[in-house]
This record gives sequence, structure tokens and C-alpha cells, in this order.
Amino acid sequence: MPSDPKRLADLRCELTRRGWDGFVVPRSDEHQGEYVPPRAERLAWLTGFTGSAGLAAVIGEKAAIFVDGRYTLQVRGEVDSALFVPRHLSEEPLSGWIAKELPKGAKFAYDPWLYSENQAAALKEAVVAAGGTLVAAEDNPLDAVWADQPPPPIAQVLPHALQYAGRSSQEKRADLAEGLRQRGIQAVVLSLPDSIAWLLNVRGGDVACTPLPLSFALLHDDGRVSWFVAPEKLSKGLMEHLGNGVSCQLPGDFNAVLDGLAGKRVLLDPASAPAVLFQRLTAAGAEVVKGTDPCQLPKAMKNPVELAGTRAAHRRDGAALTRFLAWLDREVSRRAEAGGLSEQEAADTLAAFRREDPLFRDFSFETIAGSGPNGAIVHYRVSPESNRNLGLGELFLCDSGGQYLDGTTDVTRTVAIGTPTAEMRRRFTLVLKGHIALARARFPEGTSGSQLDAFARHALWQEGLDYDHGTGHGVGSYLGVHEGPQRISKLPQAVALKVGMIVSNEPGYYKTGAYGIRIENLVAVTKSHRGDGEERSMLEFETLTLAPIDRRLIEKDILSGEEKAWLNAYHARVLAAHAEVVDEQTKTWLEAATAPL
Amino acid sequence: MPSDPKRLADLRCELTRRGWDGFVVPRSDEHQGEYVPPRAERLAWLTGFTGSAGLAAVIGEKAAIFVDGRYTLQVRGEVDSALFVPRHLSEEPLSGWIAKELPKGAKFAYDPWLYSENQAAALKEAVVAAGGTLVAAEDNPLDAVWADQPPPPIAQVLPHALQYAGRSSQEKRADLAEGLRQRGIQAVVLSLPDSIAWLLNVRGGDVACTPLPLSFALLHDDGRVSWFVAPEKLSKGLMEHLGNGVSCQLPGDFNAVLDGLAGKRVLLDPASAPAVLFQRLTAAGAEVVKGTDPCQLPKAMKNPVELAGTRAAHRRDGAALTRFLAWLDREVSRRAEAGGLSEQEAADTLAAFRREDPLFRDFSFETIAGSGPNGAIVHYRVSPESNRNLGLGELFLCDSGGQYLDGTTDVTRTVAIGTPTAEMRRRFTLVLKGHIALARARFPEGTSGSQLDAFARHALWQEGLDYDHGTGHGVGSYLGVHEGPQRISKLPQAVALKVGMIVSNEPGYYKTGAYGIRIENLVAVTKSHRGDGEERSMLEFETLTLAPIDRRLIEKDILSGEEKAWLNAYHARVLAAHAEVVDEQTKTWLEAATAPL
Repeated sequence: MPSDPKRLADLRCELTRRGWDGFVVPRSDEHQGEYVPPRAERLAWLTGFTGSAGLAAVIGEKAAIFVDGRYTLQVRGEVDSALFVPRHLSEEPLSGWIAKELPKGAKFAYDPWLYSENQAAALKEAVVAAGGTLVAAEDNPLDAVWADQPPPPIAQVLPHALQYAGRSSQEKRADLAEGLRQRGIQAVVLSLPDSIAWLLNVRGGDVACTPLPLSFALLHDDGRVSWFVAPEKLSKGLMEHLGNGVSCQLPGDFNAVLDGLAGKRVLLDPASAPAVLFQRLTAAGAEVVKGTDPCQLPKAMKNPVELAGTRAAHRRDGAALTRFLAWLDREVSRRAEAGGLSEQEAADTLAAFRREDPLFRDFSFETIAGSGPNGAIVHYRVSPESNRNLGLGELFLCDSGGQYLDGTTDVTRTVAIGTPTAEMRRRFTLVLKGHIALARARFPEGTSGSQLDAFARHALWQEGLDYDHGTGHGVGSYLGVHEGPQRISKLPQAVALKVGMIVSNEPGYYKTGAYGIRIENLVAVTKSHRGDGEERSMLEFETLTLAPIDRRLIEKDILSGEEKAWLNAYHARVLAAHAEVVDEQTKTWLEAATAPL
Repeated sequence: MPSDPKRLADLRCELTRRGWDGFVVPRSDEHQGEYVPPRAERLAWLTGFTGSAGLAAVIGEKAAIFVDGRYTLQVRGEVDSALFVPRHLSEEPLSGWIAKELPKGAKFAYDPWLYSENQAAALKEAVVAAGGTLVAAEDNPLDAVWADQPPPPIAQVLPHALQYAGRSSQEKRADLAEGLRQRGIQAVVLSLPDSIAWLLNVRGGDVACTPLPLSFALLHDDGRVSWFVAPEKLSKGLMEHLGNGVSCQLPGDFNAVLDGLAGKRVLLDPASAPAVLFQRLTAAGAEVVKGTDPCQLPKAMKNPVELAGTRAAHRRDGAALTRFLAWLDREVSRRAEAGGLSEQEAADTLAAFRREDPLFRDFSFETIAGSGPNGAIVHYRVSPESNRNLGLGELFLCDSGGQYLDGTTDVTRTVAIGTPTAEMRRRFTLVLKGHIALARARFPEGTSGSQLDAFARHALWQEGLDYDHGTGHGVGSYLGVHEGPQRISKLPQAVALKVGMIVSNEPGYYKTGAYGIRIENLVAVTKSHRGDGEERSMLEFETLTLAPIDRRLIEKDILSGEEKAWLNAYHARVLAAHAEVVDEQTKTWLEAATAPL
């Protein structure tokens, strides 16, 4: 889908018709999600750019597209730079472009449904600094010229059973309502679909890879919820599952209900809720209280039932991955002289193994299966053009995960194809040292992921190496594979890691044009107590993912005794988990793959 | 100085006279400094509380004093709780007290010279949430009833010679002015005395322990400075030192000059500049640009001359401390049966040794000399009441530093008096492991201190232990012993460590009622290059402090080979630095104290 100049021309006409000098088209939808439905793919429709983040802006006869470092190559392939000048999202930001291009006194418009309050405030600052006026569009001018814009998705909403959710929606709502009452707040507007799915114990299918129904909701301080959801999405029996405390209303009624909140104190999250809601509530005479979406923290702290579910999901997912890794080794040997094995076939085979599980519902993201130089592209997705065979002497990086009814998985293994070089082995071992350091971390309550991030990088730093992505992201329970509020990264972060949170542990190393290494397990935060002399309440990680780490890539001599002990104990767990479940061929392979170092 | 009820009564009368229902008295002055002149000791005058942080508030017939965890005991000793209810600064904050006590519609006043813009915004939020109105006092009502309030200090301002400063004021001003012009800013108001001292290459003596002249200044985008400073403070020859680009004006002219900035874009730091300046400039018609004080970052990145100076200062300071440590060991043995040695005598002796240096000007803070349980009080200061003898079987913690013309020092050593227990030795060694981990840290450019903090705590965390203070603070060059913007702590921090920054490395452990341990060296950030395979630009620390670490407290078996190697190399440096400088007795002692493990 290359850039279509007519679309940009149509948008310009529409802007002129409305008397606006500029407009911005973000990639986000009303729910600020990582995946958006086809209806919200406005950036792709306008520019041709299909990446998962970015924005385009138009000012008079100028237009630009802003993407981050992951997409600087892709954007040049997909977008006609005569129409949209490509710029770097953070190094050449929109604010600078506005400062340069926006005439004084000009009107620059945006869609306040697609911008969070915080994002809108930043945009306003840029526009005002340039001497312009920021206009909140009542309806999106791009939608006005997109004749065949798809309708909103209407995937069925299904109950998420108590055997997986662990707590009833009623209990969750009662807890949150108590918190609202203590703060003198009468209602909170929920705009994040994962918050609503968690709160109501429902799952849906409106976007790819995440079982989310897209909707808005209002939680009142008596625990009742007004849920604005298209009636055709409600599956049979769902109303019973929801119970009396949840009233389903038409999405079109949302605005009117907001207007009825005059005089009430209403909580809204400026980091995620659309700016339009702040404007609407304020205009209606409600008192807007800015604060974090109150579902996010309890959702992240999984209850014992969710943790048991995720452990079970990881056992089955690990068995499928183990079967794949054994198959991969066999096929590499078998085909060495017969044309080889492609990235696509590898990804497809792993997918087929996962699909055999009766609780499997979807992949948790598009599989990354990168061999050789493709492994160094952090967000690589195999395509017919990029697909290549796994070459001897190369590394193969495979990052994948599943959505199971009882849990969400995300795992990366890096495998030697043929004989690896000494440099590959050394750097793999440095990444492994970082992975083990984080897996073994022990820390007092109150510690954030940012405080632990350097443990995962320490060994690489000793040799002047590093990786340019976070070390860990939160993971949901049959929900988003990326969720907050916790994370492990270089970025400052005030949210502490708490018991029950699931995060990834995924240090890596990437040599552009040559190979990529990443070792990723998911871990859960648990209590840690080792003796009476301890003065602080301590936490540690329980590793959830169960799949062998390639011993052929380990330079044993640079592992400490404790590191070897960790790896051997981990491999013993992996073997014990899968030995009686997998086929004989896989079992034999696994015994060798998990033999003590 | 116990609380004087008449003072509170007088203040209440004054508030009534002005029609105000409440008022807040912070400990800060106009310059947000750690040390304030006697004139600004309003909190102590009103309440009797002499701690270095806190605030009091009055609402009608109620009054409260807010202090942090360091001062919960002290406040009860100094302040009559019938007059001021003691509250915890962060756990029972002023905002909650205002919410509870302030009647709706009430007027709550504050002195906008003593509150930064950010602090004032937070105060306003609390007052408005309680249904009140925040009033910015034109003059401080407490000053109106403080009959014998001391005058502002008028210590002489002296040139800080180029041989110590390393860069001329003219160059510094030209650099900053260039930065202002690039941002389209016509002037920046400087309210931080250390920024002004650095920018003008001057030093003063208006407060204790830091060679600061208190004043305000305006840097224009052509590099000129308008400096609002009392003429009686200017030492002979200072005007020549300052040169043509600096015009000295009366402090009383400051307001009028601000009013003259109408139509200009003026930079102000909301984190440090008094709120009144924002109000005044806005009212005058200037466009206030909020941003970081542009002196802070270049000031923190010491130039090669400053680094050479600080190395020299640390050599001499380390020699004085070494002489003291040798003396201490001798005296402890000698007096074991003759009445012992007191904390005060120890502190006085160390002070006398430091004073012998011709470049010594002051102590960089009040010495902490805590033996036994006093060592566990993190901010302990010896007083006639608290003074105690160093007991056998105890630990003695001594944290001290000097202000030398060529550098500022800050060092903590913890020493065994007699035979330490196994627990003391183990925990000392855990603290030492943390100190060494940070001293050996290697990290890419762009890394903040918050990312490294956990290195210093890792060994303690393994045993369920921790310490409740930061690991490192910035240190000035013959300036503040605590300076920003960098720090090493658990708190989120976006400012990266940069070449030339000086920070402390001071992990500790405190057992309440028993003993305290802290090992503190200052370190400077330097480039680190170890070979061609390195892909990132790496940094590391150069340890500046040179004094032995007590080997009698080290449990050698739990140090790794690398840790022992670091300590032995460090001790070899200490011996080499001082062997030819100290007296024979000290040298003999030092040779034993620095013998390889």
C-alpha cells in the first residue's frame, strides 16, 4: 500500500474547507492501544506507513511523517517522501516541525479522541509556542474524506470464567468503589480496554493478538458500571455473567451520560484517557480529578488463581516450544544439503505446535523469527521479501508467544545453526549473565524495575556493549502481552514491583548486519524470605517460562559458579516439566539440551 | 531555644490583622539552600526547631510542625507540642493537614520568596482542594513580628582565581549566552547562589560551610550580567576581577529591573526560583520560559583544572584523615584504662589536623562523629548532651569534609574500637562490597545515577538488609558539598552522569541503638576505554578520596578475587599518596593499615 497522493489532496481540501492550516494524524485510536482496528488505521491509509507507532502532520503544502528508530528504513520503503518528508520521532520531533512550518496566527487541528490529555497538552505547548492556535476537531476530517473507512469492529465479547480470573467482577468493583469513596470521587471514566476487560471479567476480539473488546465504561462509587458497548457484541449469556451491577448502554449514549456528571468529582487518567473527555466533563460542570486509572495496578498484581493459570500455560507453551527446538535441530541437520529451512517455515511450525493446545486462542504478537542479519532487527517480522533460509554458522532468534485462556506467554530463544563463532558464543554468554543476574535478583519492597535494569546490562557493559530496548515489560493474564504500570528499563520509573506482577526478563545484543541475541523468560514477583536476621521485607522473581537455553552458545568459563548453578537448576526444572509430556524424540533431545554444564 | 508561645501569639495577631486564616513557615530562604543565614531561621525562631529541613503551619488556633524521619526525635525535644503538633513531613503532609483544618473560603498565606514555583503550585493545589484561597504575602508577616531579626549577611565576596576555576567567567557567560540566543531567550534569572558563584568565579561566606554569597543575578543573551549584591560585600579588587561584563546593582533595584523585562522571553527554573519572580515577571508582561537553571549542568561537569584541584585537595585531606586515624588507634590503646576518648575530642582533633592546611577555608559540613549507637543516627551531630566515649567493642563512624580553595571533600570512615563482633564485620564487609561494586562500575554514556544505585545495595539485599539514604550526591568545586543535578539514589532520575561530575559513593548500614556503618569516597566520572571491540562510549569512576578502609572490619572470605584486588590496589594508592608526606608514626601505622588482604 504505497502513499496515495489523492488521499493527502482530499485531506488538504477538507482542512481548507474547515479553515484549518494544519492537522496531525497519529497512529493511535481512542484507547491508546498497541493494536488498533482497521477503522483506526488512519496513518496507514493516508501515508502507506504500516508500522506500529508514528504520526503524520500536514501544514499547508508541507507534510511530514514521524517515526522512531525501528522504522527509519521501513518508512522510506512504504511512504513517498515527495508527499511526506520522513523525520525521526524523538530527534526531529513534531514540535520542532511546527515551530518551523506553522505560520503565526495559524489554526492547527487535532482529533481529541486520539490524543490523551497529556499528549494534547504537549501539542498545545508546541502550537502556542509557534504563535498558532490549537483546535480540537469535533469530528475527524480524515474520516470525512475516507469513503470506505471500515466500521468499528464487533467481535463477540465472551465471559472470562472465574476459574481463570480468580476474582469476581463484583469483588473487584466493590474494592475500587471503596477507593473512590475514600477519595471523595463519584465516578471514574475507564478508557483502557484492558482495564475494562479485567474489571468485568470479559474478553473480546476487536484487535489482533489481544483478547480485548474496545469500549468505554464508567465505574460509579457504589460499584455499578455503565458500559458503553455495541449490543451486537454481547454474546449469549454475557448479561447473566455481568450481573445486575453492570448496565450496558449504547456507545452513542456515552456523551450524554458524561454531560450528566455535572457537579460530580470524576477521575480521569491524563496519561491514557482521550483529551476530549476532559474537555467534555469540564464543560459539563464536573470536577475532573486527574489520577492513574485505578484498574491498572490491581490488574498487574495477579491473584493466586491467575498465577496458577499462567504457570500452567507456561508449562504447555514451553512444551510446544521445546518440541519446536528439537524439530529445528533435526531439520537443520537433515536439510543441510537439501535446500535448507526458511524463517517462515520455522515460524509456521512453531505456530502449528502451539495451536494444538485446546486452551490456545491466538498468538500474543506476531512471531519474530530472524536468522543471521534479520536477527539484529529488533522488531523484525518475516515477509515474503525478507524470508531467508537459516544458514550454517548463523544464529536464529525466535521471539513468540501465545494467548491461552489461562495465561499469556512471551519467550525468546536464540539458537546456533551449525557452528557458532567465538564472538557469538561470548556475547551470548554475556547476555545470559545479564539474564541470570536479573532472574536471581533479590530486592526490598518498594523497588522499581528501573533500579534493577542495570543488573541485566552489567556484563555487557564490561565489554563496551549494550542493547537499545527495555529489559522487561509487564504481561497480562490472557490480556495484553505488554501492560503497565511496571517495567524494567533505563527510563526513570516510580512504580514499584509488587507481588504477583509478571514481567519479562529479556536482555539482548544486536550486531547490525550480522546477528541478534535475546534470551527472554517471563518472571513473577514473589516474596523472598531466607532467615531471621533479615530486616527488610524482600522480593524476588519466580521464572515462569520453561524452555532450554542453547548450551552450544555458552562459554562456560566466563560463568561464575552461581551462574552455572542457576542454569543447571533451571534446566532441571525444564526437563522435569516436559520429560513426561513430549514425544520420545523430543525427550531424548531435551535430556541432552538440559544436561548440566 | 525552646518554643516561645509569645512568638506564635504575635504571629497569629499579625495574621488576624491582615485578614488571613493561615500561614506557612518553611525552613528555606530565597535561595533554596541547605544552609540559611540567621535572618532566614524563621522556623527556628517561631518553633524552636533547629533541624535543617521542615516547616510549620498555622491555621486559626491550630498549629503543626512537619519534619522528616531524621528529626522525629529531635522535634519532640525542641518544640512544645502543645503549641505545634509534630507531624511527619511526607507521611502526614501539610496538604492533608490543610484539607482537615482549613475552613472553606479561608485565606491561607505564604511568602512567595521562600517557595519555588513548583512548591507554590503544590501548595496552591492543597489549599484550593480544601476550598480555600492561597494568598502570596507581599511581605512576610513573621518578619513583621520578629523585632530583633538579624540583618542579611554581608560577608566579603572574594575572587575565585582562574588557577582554581579553570575557566574565565567571560567564557562561561559567552557559552551560556549562546545557548540562550539559540532558544530565543533574552535573559535568565539566577537565584541559586552556587550558580552565581560558579558563573562569576567568586566565593563568599554568607552561610556556614559553603563559600556562597547570597544574591540574585540576571544573565542577558549578550553575556552581560546584572548582579544584585550589597555593595559593602564587594572586596577590594573584585570589580576588576568581574570586568566590564558584570554590572553590580543594589539588591533593592532587582524588582524594578524585572519590571523592565516586559516583552522579553525570560528563563526561570520552577524547581528553584522563588514563585514571586514568576508572578512579578508575568505581571510585568515578560514571557516566562520554564526551564532548568543553565548553570547547574556545566557547573557539575568539572573542567580539567578543577579536577586537578580536587585531586590535590583530596590528597592533602586524605593525609590529614590518615594522620587522625593513626592517632585514634594510638589513643584508643593508650587510654583504654584511663577514661577513654570522647566523640567531641576525636572530632576536634581531626578538625585541627585539617586546619593546618594553608588552603583550608572551612569544613564542608558539621562533622558526624558517632560512636556505638550514635553511629546509627544518620545525621548525628555531637553535642554536650550526646557526647560519649568511644567504647571497646564498638564501631566509630566519622563523616567529615573540608572546603579548600582547590576543592571540596567529604569522606566517611567506620573504625573498629577494640574487637568488633562477627556481625559487625560481616555487615561492614557487605557495605564494602557495595562500595566496591559502585567504584568499579562501568556504564555507557547516558546512564543516570539511579540506574547504578542498586549495585551498591546488592550485597546487603542478599541478606535482607538495606539503608535509608541515597548512595551518592554531587559535590562542588570549593562550593556546595551537596549539589545537583546528578545523584545516585533509588529515586527516579533522568539526568545522566557526565564526564567531570563528582559524586559520593557512600553505602551504609545502621542498626538502631547499636552501631552504624558507612564507607564514603568521592569519585569523578571519567571516560573508559578498554579495547577495539567496544561499541559504546563508556564511562567509569575515578576514586578521589585517599584514606585507608579499616581492614580489621573486613571478612575476607566473602570478598571475591576482584573485590580484594580492588581494595589492595586502592590501599596501594593510599600508601603511595601519603607515605612520604605524613610523620613516621603515621607512616608505620599506614603501612600496616594498607597491607594487602
